[in-house]
Amino acid sequence: MTNGIRLLAISGSVRDRSSNTEVLRAFALLAPPSVTVMQYEGLATLPAFNPDHDGEGMTPPPAVQDLRSQLANADAVVICSPEYAHGVPGSLKNALDWLVSVPDMVHKPIALVNASQRSTHAQLSLAETVRTMSMHLVADQPYVVPLVDRGMTSVAIASDPALAAPLLDCLDALIIAVSHDRQATPVFSPC
Amino acid sequence: MTNGIRLLAISGSVRDRSSNTEVLRAFALLAPPSVTVMQYEGLATLPAFNPDHDGEGMTPPPAVQDLRSQLANADAVVICSPEYAHGVPGSLKNALDWLVSVPDMVHKPIALVNASQRSTHAQLSLAETVRTMSMHLVADQPYVVPLVDRGMTSVAIASDPALAAPLLDCLDALIIAVSHDRQATPVFSPC
Repeated sequence: MTNGIRLLAISGSVRDRSSNTEVLRAFALLAPPSVTVMQYEGLATLPAFNPDHDGEGMTPPPAVQDLRSQLANADAVVICSPEYAHGVPGSLKNALDWLVSVPDMVHKPIALVNASQRSTHAQLSLAETVRTMSMHLVADQPYVVPLVDRGMTSVAIASDPALAAPLLDCLDALIIAVSHDRQATPVFSPC
Repeated sequence: MTNGIRLLAISGSVRDRSSNTEVLRAFALLAPPSVTVMQYEGLATLPAFNPDHDGEGMTPPPAVQDLRSQLANADAVVICSPEYAHGVPGSLKNALDWLVSVPDMVHKPIALVNASQRSTHAQLSLAETVRTMSMHLVADQPYVVPLVDRGMTSVAIASDPALAAPLLDCLDALIIAVSHDRQATPVFSPC
């Protein structure tokens, strides 16, 4: 049932060398061959969310169309985000704001990864928001990757058993959630 | 002591006809002549916050320079924000993210206004963030403007005693905080 699972990974940081982005690259390295992890790289291209431009029948800005298209093509989502001033990075929340009205998001499995053990406010806010969007948060608590050296590469993270373990747990939970969704969706094949 | 007080009003919505923006315009109408209320209108022009572009000695993007300049010229700040998916609008949080490193923000008085009584998550997050930024939140609870008709103009809001009262309370609190700061700052005038 895990054949062809596609996961969209969203880093909450737009830094060139972001430890959150490296964690998601490690997540991709750890994925089994049947799972494709796509990295979303458009956070900085999104305009400020404006409900005036998000009405029924309106054509959203191209960067928003791209985000929604990548999500429509994904079976599940994983977010790894820093915390800024005890809150969610604005640019990440802005992306979620553009997704609130999208029916594709309802029940879509999502997992949160936290690369900073001491930061809890942003994770709690993110959990509240994705639940409010009716997404399926696969774990009540974020998967904590206890990074100490913030300059680690994805390869180093994926090779460290203590850092890889929560990412493997996260992968398992998302694969199980997607498989369960597929089993629950009746497929009527022609004879 | 209230001579020449300048307040910067930041609406958390970029809609053309935003009730949060109208509330802040009503706030300006209610201000005494000695208080100038400037409306910040650049939220949608700010790029996604990137710590790589916010280092010491770096020149920030023009829209960020403009935001910081308007804040440097303000004695205090008032925010009126909607709530999106039980969170702070991403574009508003993005503006705050660009201000975390700015020394001008430390101890600057700030008040939060809530035009939606049932929305509490965004207000709590905003309070946590501005306290983390070492701003001086002048009231533990937001000033709630109990709007029922969301199409009201600023003039109608300012003319309704029940809606104007919390805004007048908010103005008082900010004026007192600014006056207190000025009294606490020793001024050495030449003889």
